[in-house]
Amino acid sequence: MAEPFVAIGGDAAGLSAASKCRREDPNREVIVFEKGSWVSYAHCGTPYYVKGEIEDLTDLLSLRPDEIEERGIDLRRHHEVVGINTTEQVLRVEGPDGTVEQPYGDLLIATGARAVTDPIPGCDLDGAFTLHGLDSAAAIRAHVTDPDEIDPEAVDESFVDRDRVRRNASMAPPDAVAIVGGGYVGVEMAEALSAYDLDVHLFQRGDHVLPAFGAAVAEEVEDHLRKRGVELHLGTEVERIDGDDRVSGVEHAGRRVDVEMALVGIGIAPNAELVDGTPIERGDSGAIATDEYAETTLDGVYAAGDCAEAIHAVTGAPTWVPLGLTANRVGRAVGTTVAGDRTPVGAVAGTAAVKAFELEAGRTGLLEDEAREAGFDPMSTTITAGSRSGYYPGAEPTSVTLVADGGSGRLLGGSIVGKDRAAVRIDTVATALEAGMTIDEVERLDLAYAPPFSPVWDPVLVAAKVLAGELAE
Amino acid sequence: MAEPFVAIGGDAAGLSAASKCRREDPNREVIVFEKGSWVSYAHCGTPYYVKGEIEDLTDLLSLRPDEIEERGIDLRRHHEVVGINTTEQVLRVEGPDGTVEQPYGDLLIATGARAVTDPIPGCDLDGAFTLHGLDSAAAIRAHVTDPDEIDPEAVDESFVDRDRVRRNASMAPPDAVAIVGGGYVGVEMAEALSAYDLDVHLFQRGDHVLPAFGAAVAEEVEDHLRKRGVELHLGTEVERIDGDDRVSGVEHAGRRVDVEMALVGIGIAPNAELVDGTPIERGDSGAIATDEYAETTLDGVYAAGDCAEAIHAVTGAPTWVPLGLTANRVGRAVGTTVAGDRTPVGAVAGTAAVKAFELEAGRTGLLEDEAREAGFDPMSTTITAGSRSGYYPGAEPTSVTLVADGGSGRLLGGSIVGKDRAAVRIDTVATALEAGMTIDEVERLDLAYAPPFSPVWDPVLVAAKVLAGELAE
Repeated sequence: MAEPFVAIGGDAAGLSAASKCRREDPNREVIVFEKGSWVSYAHCGTPYYVKGEIEDLTDLLSLRPDEIEERGIDLRRHHEVVGINTTEQVLRVEGPDGTVEQPYGDLLIATGARAVTDPIPGCDLDGAFTLHGLDSAAAIRAHVTDPDEIDPEAVDESFVDRDRVRRNASMAPPDAVAIVGGGYVGVEMAEALSAYDLDVHLFQRGDHVLPAFGAAVAEEVEDHLRKRGVELHLGTEVERIDGDDRVSGVEHAGRRVDVEMALVGIGIAPNAELVDGTPIERGDSGAIATDEYAETTLDGVYAAGDCAEAIHAVTGAPTWVPLGLTANRVGRAVGTTVAGDRTPVGAVAGTAAVKAFELEAGRTGLLEDEAREAGFDPMSTTITAGSRSGYYPGAEPTSVTLVADGGSGRLLGGSIVGKDRAAVRIDTVATALEAGMTIDEVERLDLAYAPPFSPVWDPVLVAAKVLAGELAE
Repeated sequence: MAEPFVAIGGDAAGLSAASKCRREDPNREVIVFEKGSWVSYAHCGTPYYVKGEIEDLTDLLSLRPDEIEERGIDLRRHHEVVGINTTEQVLRVEGPDGTVEQPYGDLLIATGARAVTDPIPGCDLDGAFTLHGLDSAAAIRAHVTDPDEIDPEAVDESFVDRDRVRRNASMAPPDAVAIVGGGYVGVEMAEALSAYDLDVHLFQRGDHVLPAFGAAVAEEVEDHLRKRGVELHLGTEVERIDGDDRVSGVEHAGRRVDVEMALVGIGIAPNAELVDGTPIERGDSGAIATDEYAETTLDGVYAAGDCAEAIHAVTGAPTWVPLGLTANRVGRAVGTTVAGDRTPVGAVAGTAAVKAFELEAGRTGLLEDEAREAGFDPMSTTITAGSRSGYYPGAEPTSVTLVADGGSGRLLGGSIVGKDRAAVRIDTVATALEAGMTIDEVERLDLAYAPPFSPVWDPVLVAAKVLAGELAE
C-alpha cells in the first residue's frame, strides 16, 4: 500500500487538498498536521468578527474538526512538523505526546504565512496586537469591548485561548487606537474599530494606503476614510509603541500620538523556513518555488497557499500573492493530482477586493508601475463613470483604471473603486486579462446593460474606450 | 467635396455614429433624419419613469437636440425617410415642408424596431398600451395616476404628445391591469405598475417568463413576482382585449379577467421595410443583414441598432439581438469607419440583465436549447451558492447556470439570478465566452474574493467546478 498523502497545515490549502484527494481516491490515507487549534477558518472574515457583524468565532470555520474527520481525513491538531527528511520521505512531528516520525508518499507544504511585526519595538505590550488567526481576533474584540458587556466564558469553542481573551476583556477599553500599516488589514480594521467608541489613527509608511491598488483607488479610499472619521498619517513610519505594561502611545517622525491600543498590520511573511536545508527551494520572494502543478523543486512534494509562489497570469513568472482563493484552488488541484489525475493549478492574476466602510475597491494584474518593472511599456488611464444609468436612482461614481501594453495593446491590469457594485466589476477585467485580450477586444465586449445595474457603457468599457483611443494616437 | 454621411434614425445607433464621425472628421457634413420628436432617449429607462422613480421624461434623454446641433450634426426631426434610391444615392424624405431629396455619400440605416401588437384585437381601446417610446411612457403614467395628482401641463418638453397625456390623465385610474407578454417589458412593467394601487396580472403564452433567460432563472423570477403580489397566468394566450371605448377585460383560454388597462409587450419587430426593393438585403430574422463592419450587402450602406443583424460571438452566424449597448457600440464603430478608419463592430453575445423587484438576473451566449439548435452538444448545470461569504451579513443565494460544449469543453453561455450583485456577475461569463474559454479555464479564473462581496469561490466558479466535473465523467 502507498505511503499516505500528508499535508502540513490545516487551513484552506491543506484541507482543500486533503478533501479533494479523499473524494477522488477514497482508499488513500490522508493525514493533515496542524500546529495550532484552529483549522479551516476564514482569515478574511476576522475584521468583521472584531467589528461585531459576525457574532461567533465558530461562524468563521468552514469545516469543524468533526466534519473533517467525517471526510476520512486523519486530522492531527497541535502537531507541528519540525523537519522533513526528503531522502527517507519522513517527517519529524512534535505533538502533545512527544516527537514522532511520519512517513509520506506525496507531501503538501501548506504552512501559511505569519504577521510581520519587527522591527517595531513595543509589540509585546498589553494592548498591542497583530491580526492573524482567530485567537488574536477574539483577544482584540475582548480588548475593545466594555468589560460590563462581555462574558469571556461565552466565547465559544474550547480551543480558543481563553486566558488571553479573559485578560483583554478585563481591561478598560481604549479611547484611541493606532493602526500601523494601511494595507488590507489596516483599512478593514479601521472600519472594524470605528464601530467602537474609539479615535482611530491609521499610519502608513508610504504615501498611500492600499499600495497594491494604485494611487487612483487609494486617493478615493483615503478621502472616504477621513469622511468616516479615521485620522490618516501618511508617509510616516511608526518607530516605536510606547508604554509600561500597556500601550500608551506611538512615536513617529519625532512626534507622539497618545493611544491605548496598537494594531500592527505591516505585512505577512511566508512560513517557509521548514524547507531550508532540503532540496525544496524557495523563490526570490522567500516563498516556496513551485511549477504549474504546484510541485516544488523536489518530485512529489507540493506547496500551496500563503507559503508558496505561483505563476503570474501576465508575466508568466513566479510571484508571491498570498490570497484566499489561490490557496483553495491550488490545494484542490494538488488533491486531484496526488489522487492520480495531474491537474494544473492555474495562474494568479493578483485579483483582490477590499471594503472600506461604504466604498468597494478591486484590482487585478499589473498596475502601471508593476508593468513597467516587469518590462512592459505600459499606458494607463483612469476614468470615472456612473455605476448605473445616470437617470436611475443610486448611480454612484465609479473610477476604473486600465493598464495596457503600448506595443501590443494587451491588457495588463486594472483597478476599480466606487460605492455601487464596484468590486465585483473587477472580475470582468480579471477574466479579460487571463484570456490575454487586447484593449480593443475589451472595448468591444458585449456586457450587460440595464439601468438599475449598469449604464449602456459599463465603467469598464468606458475606460477601455478611452485607453484604446490613447493607444491609437 | 464628399457627399454627406447620412443616418436614418436619431436614437442610439444613429447619433453614436453621427457624433463619432464628426469627432473624427470635423469637416464631414453629417445629417440625421428622425421621423419623430424624440432623439437619443433611453428606452430601457421608461419602465422606471412609469414607476415614478425617474421624475421627468427629459431625464431619459442622453442628449438634447441643442447638444446634438452643438456637435455639428444637422439633426432634422419630423423627417421620415420613405425611399432609398441606391443607384443615384439619394433619399426621399417627407418632412413638415413636403417631400425633399437628399443625396448621401455614406448611409447608415438605424431605424430601430417597433412594438408588435397583432394579432390581439382590442389594442386600440382606451387603456390599452404598448411601451415603446417616450410618448407611450408619458401616457401610461398619466393613465395610472390619480387625476387629482397629475398636472398634464407639467409634463415637460414641448414635443411630447400632450393631447394623449391629457386624455389619459383625465381617466379614473384602473383597479387592475393585464400585462400581455412576460419578456423584459412585461416583467419590468409588472414591477413599475405594482407601485400603484393596482392588481397586476401577467400573461405569458409560454410556460415561463423571460424565455431568453432559461427556466432556471425564470422559476426564481416567477416565485419572486408572486411574492410581490403579481398574479401570473403562464402557458396561456390572451386572445382579445375587451371593452367598448375603454378596456374592460382580457379573454384567454375561454376565461375572462376583468381589468381596466392592458399593456401589450409581446415583442418587437425591426423597422426594415425601407430597404425592400433595394439591393440592401434582410437576413432570416427580417432585420437588415450586415457584415463585421456593419456594412450591408451594398457597399457604403451600413445598418446598426434594433433594425440590423449582427454576428453572434459563439456561433459566428448572423443573429438579431436588439439591445442598447449593441446599438451604441455598432453606431460608434460605423462613425469611425465612415470617417476613414475601417473599424470592426464586434460580435454580440446576447448579454442582458433585468430587474424584477429585488431580484436581479443576467444571461449571455447560448443556453442549452439554443446551443443544441446551433449544432453544439451542450451540457448544462445549475448551482446555487452564496453571493458573499456565508458568515457575512447579506449573503443571498445566487443561482448560476453554465452551458459548455460536451466535445470541446468550450463555454457557450450562462445565466444568473439572485438578489445581491447577481446581474453584474454575468459580465464575467460574457467575457470568458467572448474569449473562447473552456470551462476548465473558467474554473481556474482568479476572481476577487472578499467576504462582503464574494465567497472564496464566486458562484460563477462554483458552477464552473461542477460543470467541469460533469464534463470529465
